[in-house]
Amino acid sequence: MKHIVSHKNPDTDTIVAAITYAKLLNKQGIEAKPVRIGVLNKETEFLLNKFNVESPELVETLPEGTEIVLVDHNEKSQSIDNIDELNLTGIIDHHKFNIQTSGPLNIRAEIIGSTASIVTKLYNEAGIEIPKVDAQLLISAILSDTLYYRSPTTTEQDRQIVQDLNKIAEFEDLEQHSLDLFAAKSNLGDIEVEKMIKLDYKIFNFGGDDYAIGVMETTNAQYGINRKEEILDKLKEIKKNDNLKGVFYSIVDILNEENTTMTSGAEELELLKTIFGAQIKDDMAYLGNVLSRKKQLVPKFEAHFN
Amino acid sequence: MKHIVSHKNPDTDTIVAAITYAKLLNKQGIEAKPVRIGVLNKETEFLLNKFNVESPELVETLPEGTEIVLVDHNEKSQSIDNIDELNLTGIIDHHKFNIQTSGPLNIRAEIIGSTASIVTKLYNEAGIEIPKVDAQLLISAILSDTLYYRSPTTTEQDRQIVQDLNKIAEFEDLEQHSLDLFAAKSNLGDIEVEKMIKLDYKIFNFGGDDYAIGVMETTNAQYGINRKEEILDKLKEIKKNDNLKGVFYSIVDILNEENTTMTSGAEELELLKTIFGAQIKDDMAYLGNVLSRKKQLVPKFEAHFN
Repeated sequence: MKHIVSHKNPDTDTIVAAITYAKLLNKQGIEAKPVRIGVLNKETEFLLNKFNVESPELVETLPEGTEIVLVDHNEKSQSIDNIDELNLTGIIDHHKFNIQTSGPLNIRAEIIGSTASIVTKLYNEAGIEIPKVDAQLLISAILSDTLYYRSPTTTEQDRQIVQDLNKIAEFEDLEQHSLDLFAAKSNLGDIEVEKMIKLDYKIFNFGGDDYAIGVMETTNAQYGINRKEEILDKLKEIKKNDNLKGVFYSIVDILNEENTTMTSGAEELELLKTIFGAQIKDDMAYLGNVLSRKKQLVPKFEAHFN
Repeated sequence: MKHIVSHKNPDTDTIVAAITYAKLLNKQGIEAKPVRIGVLNKETEFLLNKFNVESPELVETLPEGTEIVLVDHNEKSQSIDNIDELNLTGIIDHHKFNIQTSGPLNIRAEIIGSTASIVTKLYNEAGIEIPKVDAQLLISAILSDTLYYRSPTTTEQDRQIVQDLNKIAEFEDLEQHSLDLFAAKSNLGDIEVEKMIKLDYKIFNFGGDDYAIGVMETTNAQYGINRKEEILDKLKEIKKNDNLKGVFYSIVDILNEENTTMTSGAEELELLKTIFGAQIKDDMAYLGNVLSRKKQLVPKFEAHFN
């Protein structure tokens, strides 16, 4: 049984990719099931509820030797804890790569807006019809990961794939559906501050030091900005406890396409000024139209430290 | 202009993949050209001559920022020297992976017998007809890399792809063609011993130390065995000069499916005894039916040192 593994701090793209790719394999006569290694975010929860789809099983580890395929990630640090004991046979992803394997494996990676777009292509190449609910999930993941085509990671292919999928999915208003998804994601209620920061959070090594970047994609930026004091305190605490050189938390206003970033200290704020020409005001950095961690934040950090 | 980069110590599979993939891109309206970073081996030379195909241009480096796609390899150590200055946008490969990129890229990797098989699939997926000469080249690369289906890396897909391609290529006797290729590869004439060892030669890190493994795939194993004394001396010299922990040179008798390995010292011979249960005789290790460096030699070394 192949296990299709979604990444830590799962988002809609990784969960949908795991569910739909496992189903594609099943339709090809291959035993497969999706798993997740973290709590669903509010957007994914809303989506799975709306279409009455079961969430992938939550696991901490898998039995030694289990055959796994990673979706929407490839780095060990973002994957299941005991990955070194498992049999990694495949990766489907659209991020930068950092892997070392002991044998050949199947990789399908593309410079494209979402892993769901790649899974759709795999269905098409296999000549297998996509069920309506899966078309609905795949479209939702593409709209979510590209922020309704606003992210600079969006390609012409993503738009075309959504148009084609919608012949099956039959959404009447794609923009309204994406607003519903973003509203669900933005509805954080009284979530504990550390959980909020780590909802979409990744560690990177820049110039030999570890930095963390958390991102809140939201239609309600004020919700994050109103919690500034507790966020700043928590970023300092995380920096110390997790032995990081710096922690950044970007509040990305999806609709107005604005990035407001809080940091674990004054030095980190200065760094944003240097790297992004950020405006600093009230202990926050205004980065302008920087929506993508993958395509905008990380490459600029890397260029600065290399 | 995309440059399709074949690997160091090029073999038929990497050269054919570079030529045919560049042509596929051209047919899709994308400017692309194949390049090589080393001298053609006798087999590839024979093949290109036979079908009157131009060899890819030999380059040492490429201008900064050139867009490149790696075929039949993914590790920097096996690629063009100034790869860090280039824009790596794609990889097509069937080896184990060891990469770290700064951004997303296109990767198509499969557990399959040759990179030429993957390129054939890319033609088919694009719905582009394969010209006769390219079908001839692709078949030749598959037969070469799988040692006419003898290598344990061979899959059912490789066999099927050859059968399908041969509707275009129209080889009357595929086995005879593979014997011609192997004879060309085995005809080393009075090649200088270090060149011979490094014709198909790769560096690996096992347990923190660097080892080199050269392979001579041949229908004339006696040719190598007759040159034992000078090979043993040269392996010791290479070990010292290149700061390696050990150097292995496997003479793989393709037709009789036997592996005779020479080493840079007594300790390395002992290692082969431990890892492979090799018989040691006259300073050579007899490993039996071990034909594939990728699938048999390297994984056992890695398992031993991990």
